[in-house]
Amino acid sequence: MSTIGRNLHVSVFGQSHAAAVGVTIDGLPAGEAVDAAELARLLARRAPGGKLATQRREADEPEILCGLLDGVTCGAPLTAVIRNGDAKSRDYRESAEKPRPSHADWPAHVRYGGWQDVRGGGVFSARLTAPLCVAGGIAMQILARRGILVAAHVRSIGAAEDRPMNPMGEDDAVLAARLTRPVAALSDEAAERMAAEVEAARKAADSVGGTVECMVTGLPVGLGGPLFDGIDGRIAYTVFGVPGVKGVEFGAGFEAARMRGSEMNDPWCRDEAGAVTAAANRAGGVVGGMTTGLPLIFTCALKPTPSIGQPQRTVSLAEGGEAELRIRGRHDPSIVIRAVPVLEAVTALTVLDALLDAPAVLPDTPRRDLPRVPEG
Amino acid sequence: MSTIGRNLHVSVFGQSHAAAVGVTIDGLPAGEAVDAAELARLLARRAPGGKLATQRREADEPEILCGLLDGVTCGAPLTAVIRNGDAKSRDYRESAEKPRPSHADWPAHVRYGGWQDVRGGGVFSARLTAPLCVAGGIAMQILARRGILVAAHVRSIGAAEDRPMNPMGEDDAVLAARLTRPVAALSDEAAERMAAEVEAARKAADSVGGTVECMVTGLPVGLGGPLFDGIDGRIAYTVFGVPGVKGVEFGAGFEAARMRGSEMNDPWCRDEAGAVTAAANRAGGVVGGMTTGLPLIFTCALKPTPSIGQPQRTVSLAEGGEAELRIRGRHDPSIVIRAVPVLEAVTALTVLDALLDAPAVLPDTPRRDLPRVPEG
Amino acid sequence: MSTIGRNLHVSVFGQSHAAAVGVTIDGLPAGEAVDAAELARLLARRAPGGKLATQRREADEPEILCGLLDGVTCGAPLTAVIRNGDAKSRDYRESAEKPRPSHADWPAHVRYGGWQDVRGGGVFSARLTAPLCVAGGIAMQILARRGILVAAHVRSIGAAEDRPMNPMGEDDAVLAARLTRPVAALSDEAAERMAAEVEAARKAADSVGGTVECMVTGLPVGLGGPLFDGIDGRIAYTVFGVPGVKGVEFGAGFEAARMRGSEMNDPWCRDEAGAVTAAANRAGGVVGGMTTGLPLIFTCALKPTPSIGQPQRTVSLAEGGEAELRIRGRHDPSIVIRAVPVLEAVTALTVLDALLDAPAVLPDTPRRDLPRVPEG
Amino acid sequence: MSTIGRNLHVSVFGQSHAAAVGVTIDGLPAGEAVDAAELARLLARRAPGGKLATQRREADEPEILCGLLDGVTCGAPLTAVIRNGDAKSRDYRESAEKPRPSHADWPAHVRYGGWQDVRGGGVFSARLTAPLCVAGGIAMQILARRGILVAAHVRSIGAAEDRPMNPMGEDDAVLAARLTRPVAALSDEAAERMAAEVEAARKAADSVGGTVECMVTGLPVGLGGPLFDGIDGRIAYTVFGVPGVKGVEFGAGFEAARMRGSEMNDPWCRDEAGAVTAAANRAGGVVGGMTTGLPLIFTCALKPTPSIGQPQRTVSLAEGGEAELRIRGRHDPSIVIRAVPVLEAVTALTVLDALLDAPAVLPDTPRRDLPRVPEG
Repeated sequence: MSTIGRNLHVSVFGQSHAAAVGVTIDGLPAGEAVDAAELARLLARRAPGGKLATQRREADEPEILCGLLDGVTCGAPLTAVIRNGDAKSRDYRESAEKPRPSHADWPAHVRYGGWQDVRGGGVFSARLTAPLCVAGGIAMQILARRGILVAAHVRSIGAAEDRPMNPMGEDDAVLAARLTRPVAALSDEAAERMAAEVEAARKAADSVGGTVECMVTGLPVGLGGPLFDGIDGRIAYTVFGVPGVKGVEFGAGFEAARMRGSEMNDPWCRDEAGAVTAAANRAGGVVGGMTTGLPLIFTCALKPTPSIGQPQRTVSLAEGGEAELRIRGRHDPSIVIRAVPVLEAVTALTVLDALLDAPAVLPDTPRRDLPRVPEG
Repeated sequence: MSTIGRNLHVSVFGQSHAAAVGVTIDGLPAGEAVDAAELARLLARRAPGGKLATQRREADEPEILCGLLDGVTCGAPLTAVIRNGDAKSRDYRESAEKPRPSHADWPAHVRYGGWQDVRGGGVFSARLTAPLCVAGGIAMQILARRGILVAAHVRSIGAAEDRPMNPMGEDDAVLAARLTRPVAALSDEAAERMAAEVEAARKAADSVGGTVECMVTGLPVGLGGPLFDGIDGRIAYTVFGVPGVKGVEFGAGFEAARMRGSEMNDPWCRDEAGAVTAAANRAGGVVGGMTTGLPLIFTCALKPTPSIGQPQRTVSLAEGGEAELRIRGRHDPSIVIRAVPVLEAVTALTVLDALLDAPAVLPDTPRRDLPRVPEG
Repeated sequence: MSTIGRNLHVSVFGQSHAAAVGVTIDGLPAGEAVDAAELARLLARRAPGGKLATQRREADEPEILCGLLDGVTCGAPLTAVIRNGDAKSRDYRESAEKPRPSHADWPAHVRYGGWQDVRGGGVFSARLTAPLCVAGGIAMQILARRGILVAAHVRSIGAAEDRPMNPMGEDDAVLAARLTRPVAALSDEAAERMAAEVEAARKAADSVGGTVECMVTGLPVGLGGPLFDGIDGRIAYTVFGVPGVKGVEFGAGFEAARMRGSEMNDPWCRDEAGAVTAAANRAGGVVGGMTTGLPLIFTCALKPTPSIGQPQRTVSLAEGGEAELRIRGRHDPSIVIRAVPVLEAVTALTVLDALLDAPAVLPDTPRRDLPRVPEG
Repeated sequence: MSTIGRNLHVSVFGQSHAAAVGVTIDGLPAGEAVDAAELARLLARRAPGGKLATQRREADEPEILCGLLDGVTCGAPLTAVIRNGDAKSRDYRESAEKPRPSHADWPAHVRYGGWQDVRGGGVFSARLTAPLCVAGGIAMQILARRGILVAAHVRSIGAAEDRPMNPMGEDDAVLAARLTRPVAALSDEAAERMAAEVEAARKAADSVGGTVECMVTGLPVGLGGPLFDGIDGRIAYTVFGVPGVKGVEFGAGFEAARMRGSEMNDPWCRDEAGAVTAAANRAGGVVGGMTTGLPLIFTCALKPTPSIGQPQRTVSLAEGGEAELRIRGRHDPSIVIRAVPVLEAVTALTVLDALLDAPAVLPDTPRRDLPRVPEG
């Protein structure tokens, strides 16, 4: 399935070199304005063309075919289409015969019996993250109107690290400033070191991996649920749908594996208004699959772009045996930079989906101050 | 939902102190023998009672109510029930008023409006992993008959690390030997160091986290699919349903974020029989959401047990304000040891589910040696 | 799948002669009291044992294993189990070799490759409607507290017809009285004629079909949705899960096929308080897949019980060729009488599921008095 | 959801007067040729423009944006878009204020809080059956290559009835000939009588309902399954997604409610080759939710088009109170004629979806000649 969501059904379609890529969002609440300019800004953050990204020009101007009336959702499924213009199919003829290392080519060939579209990676292309940004951008606008903000930054590229976001909530001005940099880091200095890592990889005809940290603030307590309803599992599932993701951790994550309970536990406390909150947020805002009301925080690992300019060893499907492959064409030396808005987008979709979950208690049921404990 | 799977629907039910916990597996293929003794061995690995685990005695003897005829599946849903015998509800009265730090108590209270069952953590209890093991144990038997083996080991507890499994395939004898140790590590020496970490935590009235590495061998190429069909996303989703998991990474995982493409890429090559395979397995057996035919490998981070014997800061729901909480009762100083069979179980369920996916090419469609590349 | 529902997941399990049948309801709102005596009354209406029904004694006393605390839902999945006591497996040995006409035996044999449980029809047995009544009975209680009532009656058995319910709403006393009769008809006289039809069939070692009309009152306007969200389609899907159903029609149903638009259309009008309603209800309370606020009404056709005492022609799987079969054992001459509570139950489950659908407009979005019409 | 299917996900999008309507089919097997000319012929049968249908001109030429490579499926989602050209929005201004009787206008207004698109019925328009025909037409081609044929005819319009199809299989030449008539009936004479009914309704500024009978031949035995897996329930669910459907019955359907078991039961017998089949097909090819191998047959009731030229009573949302409404514009006096290919389309989608279900027995499991019966 190219579909995520239980209540908000997001279906992505298209191949890298088909006529178009696009997305349908079903279950979108009616009466929600879509700000096209804001959507364009999100898409621009994902678009290639910067010095640090692939030179392939993509207009990335979505046409919204339905679901809106005068710019406001009408309750019908919303479908957006982005035409594929600048596609050079001939670049990919060689890869049909020689599967690219660490690309989907070979397993796709087996899976689809040779009938798959190999041009530009077909349905496995990162090109399909453009419609995901359209859908996620709309979700971000709906959430923002309810005080729920999604913001990610590049946490590291290769050896260059940014500081983590403040788990109790990051400064708004810092978050705003990250979008002014070629790399969405929290400081100029970190952005520069990261850009240097990307440049070094490019000069070496190589690529480099990295991590992205994502934070959601303004969430209510108790979103998600036990077992396979968990908001963490639902986000992890969605995030692994983004090409190149190799790992996901919430809060302290893998660091928690080295900690004692007395270090890891976040004490519950009262805020100034007397409301229950936590005094720390090593949990990353999720406990027992449910939000705690503190910022939801997770970090993703992205592998280096598998397309590199160096000659690589592979097999020849045409002639049998092994072969050398030299990938031509334009490729990002790091997908990490452009992954930031994509990860924000899929996070927003998952969070909005969870907000649309059926209520665990009907609205007309009285709420209890204290949980029940039966006698005996 | 307490349900996972698209084709194999696994529904877990029960609370820690209800009459029973259990599971229904719907979509189980007919004609599959269930070896009760083998199932019992898997459950025994999860059961408490060892020196390193909680002293709560659980019989954990599942009664299979339906779905079998003479020990062989009949195509009807299989339901197994495990009675909850040794439950001491009174232990938990205090936690109803004082939510335990890093437990689900507080978000559950908000989510369910005070109507949740707090006894022993209710539906959030790790007790629900017992029926998951029943379901997963049956899946493991079905897979094993098809040459697909699932095996996990404790990769680390606190600072004590085991070596990773060989990503090209681990030695059978080593895997067999891990089950003879109190901690399922790959060597006696690692197991001993880990046990020492657990003991140290216990003596400090504390707990400790760890990691579990899981491997699946014998998988066909091309299982999973693009986008949200990916086998990695489906496994991650399931794994986060296991209490305490804070991170998941496939293959090189977070290490990939520090690597160059030329280091990370796994070259395709030919095996001795001329079949396509890869010369390395930094991908962890999954590329583009699909299996590569090499071992599928992932590692999970588990947080330290949140229940610790030390006094902790929390809030009082009964009196307002903050309060000190001292958790009594029997608790594992580390859930990592008992998580090994649980993670094997949910992995087996997810893999069997993916094997039951509709075919990407109908069986009567001819397969092509070379992918298509259109002219132009 | 033995599962229905999008928000309320109802999973039925068991076979006729397994240790038990049962049901899990996941997604049940917390804080809902379950009245065990009322539940028992619903189950009693389905239970065999009356003069007009099979003599098989079924205790039908459900044990609720989890999901309740002190008789009130706690938000965890609720599982109820009914033990199968009075099963005589030997009665069914012949049918393993000679598939019963118009029973599932033969297609099940092909589907499950001979591994199915044939005893008493296995998973295809009407015995599985008992747990459906448990689940539906709980849903009926939750709905009733919100003023939504589900009530069905026998509309016909063979040639004996009851009058239809008043489509604008049936009299409460009439509905209450139907439950006092051996056949749930709207008058003594109709019940007697129906009972006579059943008796005549029994004496002829035969069986007889019938229809059940079901009405839901108190529904809000706009439940359901377009296309495959329609409340009619969701009910139809569920209703066909009840063994023996061969047809479903809403409102005028098949009669509408003979009508003109000017006869069929229900004019919108104002009620005494000025609220919009309809002046007639030929639609059966559903237009465009959505409820209109008038009573939701549908009628199901049930085929005659396929098990009859007369000798029947079939094939022999053991010996090849054809064979005569004489079905022994206790069978209802008409399933229609006992189908009434079952159809109420599945209807209640579907309606509650639809009530739990994500809202089509978020609660904080202002509602417009007039729909938008763009210029141009 | 505008989505049907478990394995084949069919998502319809668009509104009557949006830029486009369309459909995405996800899960389509790779390697399947799509014959555009054949698809066009199916769409032409649904298209308006004939003397008996609405005069609205719809080009109905789908553009397939993705999912195909050189006219053959590539395993990626297939999306087809049909532009909405000839839309006259002004016709519908009045209906924004005065909800049309028996149309979705009023419940949609309540459901979407006034934010819905009312132009031409918006998402509730029968215009959305055009993309359903695109999807279903592709499914019909895939099925036909496997010997599975879907064919429907108009069974009645008003009082004019066609004969039913032969439940043991209809003559190919008769089926072919039906497509040459303005009304897809099985004889010229029936088609003429039906056309006369439509003409009479049109002259009276009225509309008329009817029934469509649909048959699927070439199905394997055992498709579908117990309870909510039943092929009948899955078809019923889908069919109610088609605007105007008010009832569905399989085989003898409502007639079965008046029959004895000895009349209704279909005896199993042997065909000339010794294979098991049935000597009659009153079941309509489905027993216990599974196909019997005989033709699958069902009949749908369609209500008269709710848009009629006569003045009708309704309410005024603008001014309060009641009002008279006179619907202008072009409307079919009967939707029955154009519903035939739509019902074939949704049936084909449901059948293909069921064919893609996970196998009930794994292919490497031996099949038993006789079902098991345990001792005791």
